[in-house]
Amino acid sequence: MTSFFERHRSVLDQAVAAAGSRGYWSAYPEAPSGKIYGETAKAEAEAAFQAMLGRPFEIEPGGPARVGREESPWGLPLAITYPALAIADAVGLAKTAAHTWAHASIEDRVGVCLEILHRLNRQSFLVANAVMHTTGQSFIMAFQAGGPHAQDRGLEAVAYAYAEMRRVPAAARWEKPQGGGQDPLRMDKQFRIVPRGVAAVVGCATFPTWNGYPGIFASLATGNTVVVKPHPMAILPLAITVRIARAVLGEAGFDPNTIVLAADEATNPVTKELVTHPDIAIVDFTGSSTFGSWIRQNAAPRQVFTEEAGVNSIVVDSTPSFKGMTANIAFSLALYSGQMCTAPQAIFVPAGGIDTDEGHKSFDDIASGIAKAVERLTGSADRAAGLLGAIQNPATLARVEAVAARGTVILPSRPFEPPGFPAARTATPLILAVDGADESLYGEEQFGPISFIVRVADSGEGIARAAALAKHRGAITASVYATRDDVLARAADAFAEAGVALSCNLTGGVFVNQSAAFSDYHVSGANPAGNACLTDAAFVASRFRVVGIRRPAAA
Amino acid sequence: MTSFFERHRSVLDQAVAAAGSRGYWSAYPEAPSGKIYGETAKAEAEAAFQAMLGRPFEIEPGGPARVGREESPWGLPLAITYPALAIADAVGLAKTAAHTWAHASIEDRVGVCLEILHRLNRQSFLVANAVMHTTGQSFIMAFQAGGPHAQDRGLEAVAYAYAEMRRVPAAARWEKPQGGGQDPLRMDKQFRIVPRGVAAVVGCATFPTWNGYPGIFASLATGNTVVVKPHPMAILPLAITVRIARAVLGEAGFDPNTIVLAADEATNPVTKELVTHPDIAIVDFTGSSTFGSWIRQNAAPRQVFTEEAGVNSIVVDSTPSFKGMTANIAFSLALYSGQMCTAPQAIFVPAGGIDTDEGHKSFDDIASGIAKAVERLTGSADRAAGLLGAIQNPATLARVEAVAARGTVILPSRPFEPPGFPAARTATPLILAVDGADESLYGEEQFGPISFIVRVADSGEGIARAAALAKHRGAITASVYATRDDVLARAADAFAEAGVALSCNLTGGVFVNQSAAFSDYHVSGANPAGNACLTDAAFVASRFRVVGIRRPAAA
Repeated sequence: MTSFFERHRSVLDQAVAAAGSRGYWSAYPEAPSGKIYGETAKAEAEAAFQAMLGRPFEIEPGGPARVGREESPWGLPLAITYPALAIADAVGLAKTAAHTWAHASIEDRVGVCLEILHRLNRQSFLVANAVMHTTGQSFIMAFQAGGPHAQDRGLEAVAYAYAEMRRVPAAARWEKPQGGGQDPLRMDKQFRIVPRGVAAVVGCATFPTWNGYPGIFASLATGNTVVVKPHPMAILPLAITVRIARAVLGEAGFDPNTIVLAADEATNPVTKELVTHPDIAIVDFTGSSTFGSWIRQNAAPRQVFTEEAGVNSIVVDSTPSFKGMTANIAFSLALYSGQMCTAPQAIFVPAGGIDTDEGHKSFDDIASGIAKAVERLTGSADRAAGLLGAIQNPATLARVEAVAARGTVILPSRPFEPPGFPAARTATPLILAVDGADESLYGEEQFGPISFIVRVADSGEGIARAAALAKHRGAITASVYATRDDVLARAADAFAEAGVALSCNLTGGVFVNQSAAFSDYHVSGANPAGNACLTDAAFVASRFRVVGIRRPAAA
Repeated sequence: MTSFFERHRSVLDQAVAAAGSRGYWSAYPEAPSGKIYGETAKAEAEAAFQAMLGRPFEIEPGGPARVGREESPWGLPLAITYPALAIADAVGLAKTAAHTWAHASIEDRVGVCLEILHRLNRQSFLVANAVMHTTGQSFIMAFQAGGPHAQDRGLEAVAYAYAEMRRVPAAARWEKPQGGGQDPLRMDKQFRIVPRGVAAVVGCATFPTWNGYPGIFASLATGNTVVVKPHPMAILPLAITVRIARAVLGEAGFDPNTIVLAADEATNPVTKELVTHPDIAIVDFTGSSTFGSWIRQNAAPRQVFTEEAGVNSIVVDSTPSFKGMTANIAFSLALYSGQMCTAPQAIFVPAGGIDTDEGHKSFDDIASGIAKAVERLTGSADRAAGLLGAIQNPATLARVEAVAARGTVILPSRPFEPPGFPAARTATPLILAVDGADESLYGEEQFGPISFIVRVADSGEGIARAAALAKHRGAITASVYATRDDVLARAADAFAEAGVALSCNLTGGVFVNQSAAFSDYHVSGANPAGNACLTDAAFVASRFRVVGIRRPAAA
């Protein structure tokens, strides 16, 4: 099994270096190309996915009781069931596996993790189908974000874990000089990496792999065994992941129960029982702020890492490219119908308008400029389907309708029929115009294809309101458009203090929603949008502990 | 002020290297020698300390209200008072100071920390007097543990903080290749280190500086401002520390309120209000398990780092040096009258005795061998005073008496009169013999000069009992005596799994109580004796966050 480590060592070394320098780097090609993944890979994955529908998903540990009520937002019947493991059993099995996994060498564990990621990468088309038909993402997004990008995030966690563990020397000679011609005191010391125990990873419905892999791989690499509890509406992507991981573990001679799937249904949820189980030592959670807050309170003193939600803002002050700005904002609003934790919701625009390369633009010019750009992007059902995808949760559709009644509609939302998916749940972006004082509307998280053009006195008010929202409601991203350096500097200070990653003057092919592994620190952990970052040293360093063993040494 | 960084850069570089290699290293000489610290330093410090007695301690921010009821365990009247700052005011001042401190460069902050440590080192004799007459430590121990060793622990925290912050690049160019002959996507990224805010450090009564400095310096270096809340019985050492720190901050052009002293009295404690104040983001605590547990529960979701208490064990299986073993154990029991969080309490000895270089030794031989060795160490009042020191808390004397009535006394405790301190509160070590089944006695923390020789079937039972105690009650140290490698290996496995640092076969000048900065990881954080380690990456990495700022880059 050591061969896994050697086989992937160069990838690991590059990943460690990339996480340190934070430039562009990726281990797994994002193009869903037959040249890279094999000419038959796409068709084979499609067939494999179809063969899973309407059947029990084959995974150990099994049992007669089954759960599973996933529904494809694209309208496809799934009807896949999974073993209904009792939490006590799931945790018990993972605990039994813990001793051997804890005693494996760092290289053996990291090698297994790298091999799992490698095999996940080879199965990117299959995972893409699973992600598409649980989250509602378009196929291309499901492939990229659910496949290679998620694998990159997992690899990043492995790289951080490996680097932090390797910073602890395995052994040291301690030799303290003594006065008066005496011999030095000499001790031989060993340092053991000791994991916390069993970790729980609680998945989300929109990016089950991208958000799930960092916690899974950080815990595995540091020697913890893992119980994976997917969102009841997005089980399949993580079930495939766990099955692949178990196969690699078994081949490497480890107990496959080093990772265990614990699926549930919304009517009988098991997450609270899992994250408060006495044998659970670590919890990774992605989901709502309400449930995140419950977990932070009730799972303490376990190590808890959360990504929750917030209100992301854009502040418009001025721009050298009106077209570039409106197109870029429109794309950000449209991408996966605003169902990204990084999607902007509140766009602060000065009431008196702004200066642009096309001359002065009024508040209404900007609002309609963004609206028209969204319309251009979503005009054809084909294009809309590829960009917007489908709506993961029926509650989101209801929210679109309810919010539309509460403000001035700049762009109404409408359903559309993606080619080939007549039963898909869809909605084009809704845009409202509101006043800065209407914070009870735009300042609450309105998850889904809902955004607000917010009228403020000037960009200063916009920055202040956006930063305050971030501080009190949470935010993962912020964006500013300004041609003056002092405005950019003020925005940088305000958003840094509020713990929000800031993008400046995006007018081209990079969007505020996008967070690149090895380069962007996703979530700061410094505001209510989450208490942890994907990925930094703090994300891995407390998942293991160091225990010293010392004895007198010979001279 | 940058000159502070340059002035101490070589010390910092050595500290970072030492923390990585974990061999012997120390920045601050432990010998209380006039050659090192100046021939007049000792006398001057003594005079300065005497001049503090019976007077208001001069420190800003002040005010008319005063607190302070410290009493020297050596019998000296102290009668020093400190400003009685309201918690709201203390936190408010530290919060006001936070913005400038957060925006200082890493080098400026670390430079200030290094200069503070340097000046603390120059004042080691003064701090020694303060530590001696609050904790009851002997002068030599108060000098070493309260001075240079504490400074080393503080420096270690600065080194870890500096290394972790420096691992985040200040800037990066992100350049993602695009297919089809397009230009790459290019972004310029900056990464800012953002502190959490205001930190609280809650000191203890026995090692106020050694246990307080890691949290203080870890938080300061990472950009947080600090409110220091000393134990009401050991204010002076931290008051001197804060005063020195404030002087350096002021000289460097920072707000002295970057560190604020919040003293209190036992009858009107302020710690709970402090650690739950809305503006407090980080809590470092050293103290009892009861209060530590309250803080872990109630201060969440703040970052909480605790060192609490536990039951440390020694397991005796066999030894190649009966004299060395008994002398070493005796020294460990005697040192500062067992008032160290690292002192052993339960000594597991096989009922049938053990093999030694002096032939077979019975259970009674071992018990009396240890007792005699303690008597030799503490026979003269002069020697006893230097080794045992005085008893910090009157409750400890009461405990010695109460516990003596509950078992077979092997060595009774008695008071002694240290030369020059007729009113000192003292007690020589009490040793009892008990059965393995008497866990309700030896398995509870019996803080002070109290230890138990515990009769077990064999060393296997001893290891199992000791490791279980560590797991469930907490333990910071363990010690084993064994000539066979398989016994040592079994002990290493069991104690590592219980998260306890293990010392093997100590028969010379190294004692299980001693934990060396830069080499020993003090507390694992993996059992109830504390949730954090002094010092590892996890101790510093979550005290700051990283916020990115990105913008499109020119080609």
